[in-house]
Amino acid sequence: MELSVETLMITTGGSRIAVLSEQTASQLGVHSSDRIKITYNNQERIAIANTADYFPHNRIGLYREAVAALGVKEGETVDVQLAPLPESLFNIRAKLHGERLREKDIDAIVKDVVERHLSTVEIAAFLTALSIHGLSTAETEALSRAMIGTGKTIDFGAGPILDKHSVGGIPGDKTSMLVVPIVAAAGFTIPKTSSRAITSPAGTADRVETLCPVTLSIDEIKATVKKTGGCLVWGGSLELAPADDLFIQVEYPLGIDPMLLPSILSKKKAIGATHVAIDIPTGMGAKIKTRQEAYTLASDFVDLGKRLGLNIQCALTFGDQPLGRNIGPALEAKEALTTLMGGGPPDLREKAISLASMLFEMVGVENPRGMAEEMIDSGKALAKLREIIAAQGGNPNVEPQDLPVGPESAAVHAKEGGRVLWLSTDDIVRIARLAGAPKEKGAGVILHAKLGDTVRKDGKLLEVYAEKASKLSAALELANQLSPIVLSKKPEEKMVLDTIPEKTTHEKAFQLDR
Amino acid sequence: MELSVETLMITTGGSRIAVLSEQTASQLGVHSSDRIKITYNNQERIAIANTADYFPHNRIGLYREAVAALGVKEGETVDVQLAPLPESLFNIRAKLHGERLREKDIDAIVKDVVERHLSTVEIAAFLTALSIHGLSTAETEALSRAMIGTGKTIDFGAGPILDKHSVGGIPGDKTSMLVVPIVAAAGFTIPKTSSRAITSPAGTADRVETLCPVTLSIDEIKATVKKTGGCLVWGGSLELAPADDLFIQVEYPLGIDPMLLPSILSKKKAIGATHVAIDIPTGMGAKIKTRQEAYTLASDFVDLGKRLGLNIQCALTFGDQPLGRNIGPALEAKEALTTLMGGGPPDLREKAISLASMLFEMVGVENPRGMAEEMIDSGKALAKLREIIAAQGGNPNVEPQDLPVGPESAAVHAKEGGRVLWLSTDDIVRIARLAGAPKEKGAGVILHAKLGDTVRKDGKLLEVYAEKASKLSAALELANQLSPIVLSKKPEEKMVLDTIPEKTTHEKAFQLDR
Repeated sequence: MELSVETLMITTGGSRIAVLSEQTASQLGVHSSDRIKITYNNQERIAIANTADYFPHNRIGLYREAVAALGVKEGETVDVQLAPLPESLFNIRAKLHGERLREKDIDAIVKDVVERHLSTVEIAAFLTALSIHGLSTAETEALSRAMIGTGKTIDFGAGPILDKHSVGGIPGDKTSMLVVPIVAAAGFTIPKTSSRAITSPAGTADRVETLCPVTLSIDEIKATVKKTGGCLVWGGSLELAPADDLFIQVEYPLGIDPMLLPSILSKKKAIGATHVAIDIPTGMGAKIKTRQEAYTLASDFVDLGKRLGLNIQCALTFGDQPLGRNIGPALEAKEALTTLMGGGPPDLREKAISLASMLFEMVGVENPRGMAEEMIDSGKALAKLREIIAAQGGNPNVEPQDLPVGPESAAVHAKEGGRVLWLSTDDIVRIARLAGAPKEKGAGVILHAKLGDTVRKDGKLLEVYAEKASKLSAALELANQLSPIVLSKKPEEKMVLDTIPEKTTHEKAFQLDR
Repeated sequence: MELSVETLMITTGGSRIAVLSEQTASQLGVHSSDRIKITYNNQERIAIANTADYFPHNRIGLYREAVAALGVKEGETVDVQLAPLPESLFNIRAKLHGERLREKDIDAIVKDVVERHLSTVEIAAFLTALSIHGLSTAETEALSRAMIGTGKTIDFGAGPILDKHSVGGIPGDKTSMLVVPIVAAAGFTIPKTSSRAITSPAGTADRVETLCPVTLSIDEIKATVKKTGGCLVWGGSLELAPADDLFIQVEYPLGIDPMLLPSILSKKKAIGATHVAIDIPTGMGAKIKTRQEAYTLASDFVDLGKRLGLNIQCALTFGDQPLGRNIGPALEAKEALTTLMGGGPPDLREKAISLASMLFEMVGVENPRGMAEEMIDSGKALAKLREIIAAQGGNPNVEPQDLPVGPESAAVHAKEGGRVLWLSTDDIVRIARLAGAPKEKGAGVILHAKLGDTVRKDGKLLEVYAEKASKLSAALELANQLSPIVLSKKPEEKMVLDTIPEKTTHEKAFQLDR
């Protein structure tokens, strides 16, 4: 059926959507959410139909994505037909019924996700079914390969390509900002792509962005790595696994993360990594709560790595509290710099050295831990970070005190004295985000009391930093309501951690940051 | 944050969507798919945010649904804030993890669905989780009550209110068009609301519409029932269970139907039914394939009925082939009329009498089967149907030959002689729909050979009717490809029903019509 095009200059943020009047749709035999085949200039494109009672007859409204895909203009004529249901939808339905999918079934789904042949409703059902039924090793491998196959890859040439990744989960984890320069300073190649925060107060890309640009093209990344051996860039715009970018959009409101393994390893494979250290923070304050869960995840990582030709080692790391003391993009960049300069909190230094030496061991360095320590203590890692900052377009001479934090800040004090019994990382995340992190880079929290520390009555528990006074006071109010740092002289004196329903809100934390 | 409104005159067909520029969203701390609270004229409304890189800053684009909900005009100023996640989303997340939901959790979900606080992605995840995990009896009851509570109800006054419903699944099932006049002719009240076809060639509303209007207001329905004791109307515009209308939109592409029981019974309860006969067609050609499944469903219906104060009886009916011979809106109305006139296919007459007498028995009629037969044989049921047609605004003197079918038609003949071994109802549905049913009311299929019939070589198997020659030839081509009626002299001569992958297509049937 020939229809005249009306261009709707609005994006849908995902699927290609076309609007038809109820009458025109009914003539085509099309229901809302059916797929239609639009032909223009001998090109065929699939779109998903929305029907509307008020829309003019014999016209088709196309959102920006569909207009761009067809290259059509307002008022031009296109041919429109009901399209058959894509095979991939039957694969999704099979997964809903608990069936195992074959490699070609998964290929079809991922291809149709990337080509926008599946609606967000269908993607949501797929991810929900994966989350409930779980994935077999073969399915995980097929998903990883399909995601690599539909994305771009970067070739950094011969030699081992090292990489490090955290499954995410504890605030203040700026380890990558230390591991990359340590490894590159030792002469290895480590092209690190990172994410921005989704649910946390800072992602590595947010932290590094306070020092230099992180949105680099593939060519700029290659040049940086060629020059310095490493990089610290944002992976989000590189289309290394475009399917995953669409999956994340749907996972975020649902609070599910069934694609953790293929999501991470497809991106590692796409940049040609050969040796990868995976950090699995484990504990009350992390995404992974128990050791059992962490061991299972670790062995899944190692297995999947083998299948994909990646050499993987995992580290279960202490996840009962934030890493270091600073939380928020600029505050964390400051702490990372200070630690490379020989100061900083001991837990951050220890974790960075451990992960770097794990990588050194994997590639056969003789005294791996000694090598990692030497890179910091000699100042070589700091010099390497400055080289990377310069190569990415930042100021290599930046000093910790140059990074603007605040300017608004205030402290929260202890109402009684005691020893820190536990910290709620979820609450600390909420306070830092309410203060403005990660969007306002100077916002965040500095912890003055961590596990085991003793605090006097009226002593500082934490400081809140914000760019705006209104956000500072909102964050302070929340901090006083939530009491994220719990003190006690002895554990047995404070056995009740929370009472229900007295807790201020029921908002349950979900961490999508990887 | 104060933003200026840009009205986007496009409907989204569900959620209230607002568009923000990336920068404005980031200032608000809003991610795509987050909820925002829009305040205008002291009214607060929740919308779901879509972010777009090209959208002008400090403006908010509102789709029709959001414009209507706020009553706001182009260029006016609204206050916009990030809204907290609704409690119902945490209930959905709990269901994703397999938790049982409490009544208040389900109330919150259904309320937020109706008020458009949940996105289709979130509704899809909820329905997928229900479909995989199943529902407890308490959850099913709570869903039914919540759906009734958020919809309209109709009060038909005192006395038993009878109703009949089929869970759907066999083509050609026009039983309601006979049961309603039989029951009303006996002096009982039976206000029947029906659906239009979604995946089948005709729903009861589509069939009746060839005789009279079916889109009546609640007042018109009340007047019709007061005058005649019955009605045969489309339930879709009555908002008896608006949540279900939104659920169906999402279930349709996914091919799942977890809400079958609450969907049906909430609507029965909303019209005040006291005695309900549920038809469960069971067999190879029906939605319910096995007796075991049918018995489970039947006892679930009876249990849920008791909890909701409905007296329910279920009939497991023969579902291995279509009912009667005619399939398609006008063809089926014709057959229903003929059967009420004393002719018609015996299976249709038998089924209508059985279901009507089941209802008579439930309300204490002495000789229920005799009463049902008498209503047909005396012509009282036919006269009652004509009364109902007149009350709904149709021509009461309509005769079977007045109903326009075709005008294009052609027969499919047997290539060899034999006895009908089996019929593929899925294939017959596809042929009838390709011929134009249900949208083109004269389109459909007449079966000339049913189970056990003997067909000579070159004898007629079926006839295809269409309004357009192009659709006729497409449907005929499909009929020849699919061979939906399989002949054999003895079953053992034809043991292979299909070979793979030689079958024309892999399209798997899904029946959402209830």
